[in-house]
Amino acid sequence: APQLNGYFQQVDALADAFIERLRQAVAIPSISADPARRPDVVRMAKFLESELIKLGAQVELRELGRQPGSDVNLPPVVLARYGNDKNKRTILVYGHYDVQPAEKSDGWDTEPFELTVMPDGRMCGRGATDDKGPVLGWLNAIQAHQAAGIDFPVNLLMCFEGMEEYGSEGLDDLIYEEAKKFFADTDAVCISDNYWLGTERPCLTYGLRGCNYYNIEISGPGADLHSGVFGGTVEEPMTDLVRILSSLVDTNGKIQIPGIYEQVAPVTPEEEGLYDDISFNMETLYESLGSKTTIYDDKKKTLMARWRFPSLSIHGIEGAFSGAGAKTVIPAKVIGKFSIRTVPNMDIEKTNEAVSRYVEAVFKSLGSKNTMKVYPQHTGMWWVASPNHWNFTAAAKAIERVWGVKPDFTREGGSIPVTLTFEKATGKNVLLLPMGSSTDGAHSINEKLDKRNYIEGIKLLGAYLHYVAEEPME
Amino acid sequence: APQLNGYFQQVDALADAFIERLRQAVAIPSISADPARRPDVVRMAKFLESELIKLGAQVELRELGRQPGSDVNLPPVVLARYGNDKNKRTILVYGHYDVQPAEKSDGWDTEPFELTVMPDGRMCGRGATDDKGPVLGWLNAIQAHQAAGIDFPVNLLMCFEGMEEYGSEGLDDLIYEEAKKFFADTDAVCISDNYWLGTERPCLTYGLRGCNYYNIEISGPGADLHSGVFGGTVEEPMTDLVRILSSLVDTNGKIQIPGIYEQVAPVTPEEEGLYDDISFNMETLYESLGSKTTIYDDKKKTLMARWRFPSLSIHGIEGAFSGAGAKTVIPAKVIGKFSIRTVPNMDIEKTNEAVSRYVEAVFKSLGSKNTMKVYPQHTGMWWVASPNHWNFTAAAKAIERVWGVKPDFTREGGSIPVTLTFEKATGKNVLLLPMGSSTDGAHSINEKLDKRNYIEGIKLLGAYLHYVAEEPME
Ligand SMILES: [Zn+2]
Ligand SMILES: [Zn+2]
Ligand SMILES: [Zn+2]
Ligand SMILES: [Zn+2]
Repeated sequence: APQLNGYFQQVDALADAFIERLRQAVAIPSISADPARRPDVVRMAKFLESELIKLGAQVELRELGRQPGSDVNLPPVVLARYGNDKNKRTILVYGHYDVQPAEKSDGWDTEPFELTVMPDGRMCGRGATDDKGPVLGWLNAIQAHQAAGIDFPVNLLMCFEGMEEYGSEGLDDLIYEEAKKFFADTDAVCISDNYWLGTERPCLTYGLRGCNYYNIEISGPGADLHSGVFGGTVEEPMTDLVRILSSLVDTNGKIQIPGIYEQVAPVTPEEEGLYDDISFNMETLYESLGSKTTIYDDKKKTLMARWRFPSLSIHGIEGAFSGAGAKTVIPAKVIGKFSIRTVPNMDIEKTNEAVSRYVEAVFKSLGSKNTMKVYPQHTGMWWVASPNHWNFTAAAKAIERVWGVKPDFTREGGSIPVTLTFEKATGKNVLLLPMGSSTDGAHSINEKLDKRNYIEGIKLLGAYLHYVAEEPME
Repeated sequence: APQLNGYFQQVDALADAFIERLRQAVAIPSISADPARRPDVVRMAKFLESELIKLGAQVELRELGRQPGSDVNLPPVVLARYGNDKNKRTILVYGHYDVQPAEKSDGWDTEPFELTVMPDGRMCGRGATDDKGPVLGWLNAIQAHQAAGIDFPVNLLMCFEGMEEYGSEGLDDLIYEEAKKFFADTDAVCISDNYWLGTERPCLTYGLRGCNYYNIEISGPGADLHSGVFGGTVEEPMTDLVRILSSLVDTNGKIQIPGIYEQVAPVTPEEEGLYDDISFNMETLYESLGSKTTIYDDKKKTLMARWRFPSLSIHGIEGAFSGAGAKTVIPAKVIGKFSIRTVPNMDIEKTNEAVSRYVEAVFKSLGSKNTMKVYPQHTGMWWVASPNHWNFTAAAKAIERVWGVKPDFTREGGSIPVTLTFEKATGKNVLLLPMGSSTDGAHSINEKLDKRNYIEGIKLLGAYLHYVAEEPME
């Protein structure tokens, strides 16, 4: 096992400096959704660049050109390399330096862009956990190695983007373009941009569901009508739409479309056994849900429903009345929106076809004179990695060393599309290694990162790189 | 029959002056929905006041106080009396001097607040037909009588409001308060604020449907959820809502709620005969609809569905995703909005109970853990008057005299709530006497009033008052 005590001691010794670094980062309101804040996003990229240069990394701010449909440029991607030793492995890490919008008036207890450290260790501020804390984690790990006089165990490639919270415009192209250039010597990828399943046990994430998002468009009259004048005389698109939407899924979440469950990989006894040990309980779920309106009352069924079975959610309707109050409109054209979370071994095309076939049959059964179109608005593939790869075993050993427990091996119900892009572009194993916990409230008011998760997380990132250097490579 | 030729000649002679008066009125953008335009609405009231004073009427601008929820005053109601002869009948007329919003950029071919007279006689401008043309019709009728030196046949009470397009706030209270005061000697009421059924035959309207507007509120989680994290594990309020909405009505407009059709007055053979002669054809309907997506292909069934049978329309959903694009939200609380158009002899309370009972039973059958509430957001009674009353027979004779045809006796599918208020408050017969035609496009871009409808309409209003003076009173 690697000698890590000197490194760990320096992380503890530098804790205040690392919190100060996070304070400086949080103070830059790098909100990517708002073009007016673009100068702050760029300022954040320059802050990272200057910090990385001080640590001796090579850095490039890669411009991505104009943001489509706007008159501002996209923020640059920060590409950096620390170490270039042919005898070391090369790990590519990804994170994002942009943040979700936040205003005190949204209900924050503290100023969102002033990192506030509470007596209980919560460090509150926008971006603290998503994703400035983890991004700075890599810089802090470098610094602590230098302070401890310990050789850095790998070559580190860094890719930090500034547009993640607003669609990662331009990133995929850059990754594919650099796969055989800047990222060419990558041996494995590590992404720190998700969360523990709970608050106590660290986890490693090896799977994500995909997402197929569908529109059902129904139109009839040439323009919106008044229900007093036309109610009872025309076939209303909304009547047809709610009938179709009601045929997709039942209250218990069972998808009614034939050809979906048939594609799902069967549960093996081995997989089923994995769920028993996972640190997760329904009480914590009820708390984060704010209600007890779950479909299942037990942990295993709930986790399986979230990670390894598809689900269908109806999100809303475009074109209908959606305001407060009362409007007596007959909408002329309505677009129902729903999505299916996909899992192994579902196929995007096969799923699209099953949806089209079913929705068209239901619409036909209505005998309506209206016009119906159903089509995918976007699709994204599920992702599952092998948790037996050295990238994962190294991380698991690092977790045991730092936290004294074996990690949960988890999947996520949502999608992190860049994961699949890195896997495809580099052909290498990708590991999701979270720093924050389930109560951090990324995207919510009072976002926080616990001081413990930040400091131990820095130790973990460094330890992970040391174990990577020691793992036998297949 | 009354001597009307001198009056008609003066209406023709003054046609340009009457169009000029309409031009001045249209030029005042008296948009009641926008508090910032309130000074223009008040300016319109003062314009009417000054025109009425010039004609020798007594006028009062009655203030209604602060607009609830805003920091501006409601526009005044213009109350006026022309003539106070105990030996004459007294007719109370109602109209509104406010208009719908309009901007050239909405797609108007002309400036909405500049009256533009086209070579084919269309007079385009916001408010031309709804309702400034009809309101000025009464003033023009007075002026033409004076020019012809013909004694005005009745005492005319006028009630012109400035808030009709935004809820008629405060008007009902005023009507009830003045019923035994300013409106005390009213013998009958005439409202000119609706339209012919088509473009060729004038009509008299003796019925309106009512409207019960319902909310179905379903809530589960404490806040909106991400479908990646929670899809498949929680019972989603949208799933329940679309199932309930889909159970209300079918594609052919048939209401599925027991206890609705049971309340509808049966069709008598006499009533059925009325429909054959009505000037209405499906081609015109298809044109105004912009499609052929009607439930029925024949005139009689279509008119009956619009006038004398209830209908149910689903208007939209509050709280769900309603924008363009894709959002993977699981809405925590959604409110479905639908309304039922009511007809004789439906009872508001009985209908509310039938809706509650049915929706609650459907929700119960879902076995959902979510919470559901169903309640009426507002209700308004249907209205039917006797078309055999002297108020109607006088108007029918006037139409034959001016237009040379017998009028259609029509109902409307929509509601004009002030009609019922006047009937209840005064206890007198109310007549709806439209000036414009079905193609006028009130509330749309390119609103217009045909010059022919305006000028002949002024003749009609005057003629109606002469026939009123001659009718035997029961
Ligand atoms: Zn993130
Ligand atoms: Zn985020
Ligand atoms: Zn009107
Ligand atoms: Zn109107």
